[in-house]
Amino acid sequence: MKLDKLVGERFKEKPADCVVDSHAFMVRGGYVKYVANGIFSSFMPLKRITKKIENIMREEMDAVDGQEVSFPVVMPASMWQESGRYKSIGKELVRFTDRNDSPLVLGMTHEEAAVQLVREYGQTYAKYPFMIYQIQTKFRDEARPRAGLIRVREFTMKDAYSFHTTQEDLEQYYARCHKAYERIYARVGLPEVISVASDSGMMGGSVSHEFMLLTAIGEDSIAICRECGYKANVEAAECVLDAPKNKKSASLKKVHTPDMHTIEEVCAFLKSEASASCKAVVYQRNADDSYVVLFIRGDLEVNETKLTKHLGCDIHPAVITEESGICAGFIGPVGFNAKATVLFDRSLMGANNLICGANENDYHYTGLDMARDVNNAEYHDFAKITDGGICPVCGKHSISVSRGIEVGNIFQLGTKYTKSMNMTYLDKDGNSQYPIMGCYGIGVGRLAAAIAEAHHDGYGPIWPLSVAPWQVHLCAVRADDPDIKAYADKLYDTLQSSGIEVIYDDRNVSAGVMFSDADLLGVPYRVIVSPRNMKGGVVEFTSRDKSVSKQISLDAAADEVTALIRAELQKFM
Amino acid sequence: MKLDKLVGERFKEKPADCVVDSHAFMVRGGYVKYVANGIFSSFMPLKRITKKIENIMREEMDAVDGQEVSFPVVMPASMWQESGRYKSIGKELVRFTDRNDSPLVLGMTHEEAAVQLVREYGQTYAKYPFMIYQIQTKFRDEARPRAGLIRVREFTMKDAYSFHTTQEDLEQYYARCHKAYERIYARVGLPEVISVASDSGMMGGSVSHEFMLLTAIGEDSIAICRECGYKANVEAAECVLDAPKNKKSASLKKVHTPDMHTIEEVCAFLKSEASASCKAVVYQRNADDSYVVLFIRGDLEVNETKLTKHLGCDIHPAVITEESGICAGFIGPVGFNAKATVLFDRSLMGANNLICGANENDYHYTGLDMARDVNNAEYHDFAKITDGGICPVCGKHSISVSRGIEVGNIFQLGTKYTKSMNMTYLDKDGNSQYPIMGCYGIGVGRLAAAIAEAHHDGYGPIWPLSVAPWQVHLCAVRADDPDIKAYADKLYDTLQSSGIEVIYDDRNVSAGVMFSDADLLGVPYRVIVSPRNMKGGVVEFTSRDKSVSKQISLDAAADEVTALIRAELQKFM
Repeated sequence: MKLDKLVGERFKEKPADCVVDSHAFMVRGGYVKYVANGIFSSFMPLKRITKKIENIMREEMDAVDGQEVSFPVVMPASMWQESGRYKSIGKELVRFTDRNDSPLVLGMTHEEAAVQLVREYGQTYAKYPFMIYQIQTKFRDEARPRAGLIRVREFTMKDAYSFHTTQEDLEQYYARCHKAYERIYARVGLPEVISVASDSGMMGGSVSHEFMLLTAIGEDSIAICRECGYKANVEAAECVLDAPKNKKSASLKKVHTPDMHTIEEVCAFLKSEASASCKAVVYQRNADDSYVVLFIRGDLEVNETKLTKHLGCDIHPAVITEESGICAGFIGPVGFNAKATVLFDRSLMGANNLICGANENDYHYTGLDMARDVNNAEYHDFAKITDGGICPVCGKHSISVSRGIEVGNIFQLGTKYTKSMNMTYLDKDGNSQYPIMGCYGIGVGRLAAAIAEAHHDGYGPIWPLSVAPWQVHLCAVRADDPDIKAYADKLYDTLQSSGIEVIYDDRNVSAGVMFSDADLLGVPYRVIVSPRNMKGGVVEFTSRDKSVSKQISLDAAADEVTALIRAELQKFM
Repeated sequence: MKLDKLVGERFKEKPADCVVDSHAFMVRGGYVKYVANGIFSSFMPLKRITKKIENIMREEMDAVDGQEVSFPVVMPASMWQESGRYKSIGKELVRFTDRNDSPLVLGMTHEEAAVQLVREYGQTYAKYPFMIYQIQTKFRDEARPRAGLIRVREFTMKDAYSFHTTQEDLEQYYARCHKAYERIYARVGLPEVISVASDSGMMGGSVSHEFMLLTAIGEDSIAICRECGYKANVEAAECVLDAPKNKKSASLKKVHTPDMHTIEEVCAFLKSEASASCKAVVYQRNADDSYVVLFIRGDLEVNETKLTKHLGCDIHPAVITEESGICAGFIGPVGFNAKATVLFDRSLMGANNLICGANENDYHYTGLDMARDVNNAEYHDFAKITDGGICPVCGKHSISVSRGIEVGNIFQLGTKYTKSMNMTYLDKDGNSQYPIMGCYGIGVGRLAAAIAEAHHDGYGPIWPLSVAPWQVHLCAVRADDPDIKAYADKLYDTLQSSGIEVIYDDRNVSAGVMFSDADLLGVPYRVIVSPRNMKGGVVEFTSRDKSVSKQISLDAAADEVTALIRAELQKFM
């Protein structure tokens, strides 16, 4: 490819709306064009990257006996009504009607379509196990698309669905797929991706893992134990706490706390630690705005994923009205009698000498003893694990919390979809059973962006050879010199006929312009033909990451570069 | 691939809803699964076929300097408002809103997206010409999906868009792309596809061609001249007629034609030819239901595409109300005074001694002389070309009309989109100009179905080697015999490691079941290992189209089959 024919613009200035590096480089380097909120078109360089990523995924899915199929982007609502998700999923699912007023949806995931495709095929045990996958466009009407290709509304995803007759078989296959995912990340140049336990969310099922690239710009928080290697999304991590110290209980005493609405203000006023308080966090159910009051130790945060899961419905932070009878800012478990679901975090179990609201304007209690003063409280785990907190596996104070980008996830779905959609098979004994499913997803564009986040410098991305848009960036500095041009043209042809993917810059521009364009395209190896080099009988060969920089004689250049690229490519196999 | 692991069902009975062979075979062979009206999922065999078709398209598009990009499936309505098509396209365009009530559309074609992508890039003449293409999902809310993959609502399309600074450059590139299309059809095994002149329809522009596979099940009618080779879609073909014979005009005379509402009834009653009559065909504009009355020679049919183009709006057959003042069944050009747009087909120009309606219940005229009796009539070409009609190029009575499936189209779009979307560039003299566009489309699934229509027998499709889901179908008849199984297993491994794509049937089923499954999968070459063959020291090698049937010694089988496949594949390059 000649660079001067490459459609797309490259420029220096960082666009104001780009908050992460991968986004800025993709815009500045002519990889993507903004179309609408969370919707992009791709130019050729990104298309070449994503095709390579897709082919690596394909090879690894085929290697675990996957069969590539395709499901539709547009599906009838009826299929999603069968599974129950037409109702249970919120506005992320785009719903519309066709010319005959039949309700349709845009696919944001394809469990329903997978079951629909194989429901007739999988009617006897002998057909199992099997796995089908596709690489296809999806649309999810995200409330807050952000960070370029990291969180978009339209995206290409590799999604796979496996079907089994026993939980053991699913677990075995799940482990195989986990390994296939590790190979995918290694092959696209991200061996540092880790897998963490996760919450299954709207997918259903019990066991699930997310694959995370740790980076400060990540949207997810990951709890990692420095001692035993436990790794989980903070959303899914159990919060373990030291047992409350056994102190003698003071008596419950009402104190005047004028205009102090937050637990921090009250604790400061009473010269106490936040951990010696019981705070209330109030939510409302999305469906009917009914109140949920959660009491939790004052120094802890609520893990809303766990709360949502416990309640079995979506919630939002409450707007507390006067009519509610809830005394905002002064809520406490003693004498609370407003209409609400009242829940207690495990952090309060057995605690005493706590400060809490008195359900009366400008008053708090001190000396709260949960066991003595609060009857029939049921305690559950609703708290967020914290940096420095206790590892739920090894029990040491060894948790550190890092940010990460989720670049893939795998789920043991169980029978959620086969049951609701009535997919059955006859087992060996002629009994009707529901198949057990697993599902396995990776977003292609997000993975490309994650690679750029992990591999870049101040000038642009540094693409790993396995996914780079081209393998060699050939610069002919002073291509107006006929000798330069003739040699570079020939090298271009020779490399290309050896199967090397070359982007060739023979424009009449300064070396500075050439190199900054090359930095933005991030091709891992660069060959520079210039008057000075020609005089010395050599070309300059460098790597984008600056680890390689050497001279190769003019005669040997084609062969040596070809050999090196082939050898380096092998490392990604 | 082991056949017993292939997901998808094969069965004998032709499904009742399948009216064409390709549809029946795709359902019976486990290629597709119906999801909703005009929406299908694909199993692995079809996915393998379409991937091969897509790769051939990619190679040929790259060979004409195309750059693969991708446009979104979901686009903001604003982009389609810019081009004017948000209004001008009917219900085929799916319109919906997102969670913020922003109006969106599903892409059914991507001219707008192409202009949006390169509007900033293409600002100076030096960037031209260039071509961008994608292979992506599209959705068109067809009123009448039919014939399996021939006319669907969701489909994958290769669509390409070229940009030029002069009409000559567009024409040159258009010719190059025409050749690339011919290569694509030849390489997928359909060299018989012809290109015909077509109407540009909603795409706009002037010159356009459709690529047609002639077949009785086609939806389009193609006029072909046996003499000069003229080829056009009947929709776009000019209807040329012999000049009316010079006969002395009779006088206009009103005759009683009780209860005769069709021109055929009246002509039979008056013992006259339909060609000696002037019939009225009435339409209403879709937008406001206003009437359009078209007078045309009684033996001819109206070409509604030409009529729509002339009117510049969509129409439908009229419902004639009493209030309209139109005397249904007795409409004629003399004394017609209802509110309507009145049009005359060229077939009436200079004609005389015609029968026509008298605009009065139960009365017709005889002796109509257009020149004498109808003032200020403007004549245009609204008639459909007919089998046996006159070729508009060579003038001979040599037109034959055939049915065809449109398997691709190319358009010279002109500046329709660049003007409406305000894409400009500066020419050499610094003047602002609109780029000139061409566009080039092929539906992948329809092409796969067309191949099956063109190449099948009573038992299933006969896939050309270049697009076949596998290259060799290996049958181990009596695989329960250890010698058979051992030999076949080894042959399977050897062929696969030579890069041959093999589907391997080692099931414990009868040869009959094996062969009928193989027929449905349509793999072009078959190797049969059986007890009888083994005894003779050979395998049987046959082609699906029955042109090849021979024995190859057991030792030579792997090498010979590999060599043959490789040689045959070359023929599609």
